[in-house]
Amino acid sequence: MSGIVGTNAVVQVGFVVRDIYETKKKWAKFLGVEEPPVGDSGEYSVTRMQYKGEEAPEAKSLLAFFNLPGLQIELIQPNEAPSTWREYLDTHGEGIHHLAFNVGGMRMEQAIGKCRDFGMTLEQKGEYSDGSGRYAYLSAQKDLKTVIELLESGPQNG
Amino acid sequence: MSGIVGTNAVVQVGFVVRDIYETKKKWAKFLGVEEPPVGDSGEYSVTRMQYKGEEAPEAKSLLAFFNLPGLQIELIQPNEAPSTWREYLDTHGEGIHHLAFNVGGMRMEQAIGKCRDFGMTLEQKGEYSDGSGRYAYLSAQKDLKTVIELLESGPQNG
Repeated sequence: MSGIVGTNAVVQVGFVVRDIYETKKKWAKFLGVEEPPVGDSGEYSVTRMQYKGEEAPEAKSLLAFFNLPGLQIELIQPNEAPSTWREYLDTHGEGIHHLAFNVGGMRMEQAIGKCRDFGMTLEQKGEYSDGSGRYAYLSAQKDLKTVIELLESGPQNG
Repeated sequence: MSGIVGTNAVVQVGFVVRDIYETKKKWAKFLGVEEPPVGDSGEYSVTRMQYKGEEAPEAKSLLAFFNLPGLQIELIQPNEAPSTWREYLDTHGEGIHHLAFNVGGMRMEQAIGKCRDFGMTLEQKGEYSDGSGRYAYLSAQKDLKTVIELLESGPQNG
């Protein structure tokens, strides 16, 4: 059995934080690794980010990634514009926002459809800032008790 | 560099839930795997569980484990007695409670000491129900934005 999105491997745990520089310093020390660089989620002209079905050109975040054995820890510091990240911070405070899976054996739009059929709600989606792939956040709080992020590498219409 | 507890591998993501049977059914379907059995956290005569420095003979939970590639998902349904699990459910509701690490190259008590020196607070600890090892939950909300669980296999005074 391959599951709803064709995989059962958790590839990332994502945190929403208020101060990415302070939090990455602490995580690096705890893990005994170098501090990763801070990037950002990119410009709307590339990301075409949508939040709750609407274009979201103002929503951005700072990002940092720890590549650990078998799993990536992502830190996300959102700006003030509405996004799933900002909503989480305003509602829950800092903490673990999502678990991510690489879409397996299907394209992103099909995986999103399967997740919707499973009862999830599409919250946000966009292309990576370097155009190398795309992500989608689906709320699964009712059934799976967290947000699920889907990740897909490759060209958008490849 | 090996980090504060001698490892940087996240081995488990732990959820606190209200209905472990319903939630494990949903997770099994999403992952495309068999539903794991439900066990429990065990009797105090074995676990010697302590919560906030006090003996906690009444605190128990139902447990289920999904062994996925590189990571374990744990579901925890606490009873009503005070515990880190119950406190999380009452304060935050259902969701991801902790990330777990296997203590590396040191004993549990040394790892707890290092985490305390790092600024964490010991919340709860106990032996496994089958006596095969032990766990400790340390609050790292201020710095790492989650609870950290330490895991150790082997006899208590081996």
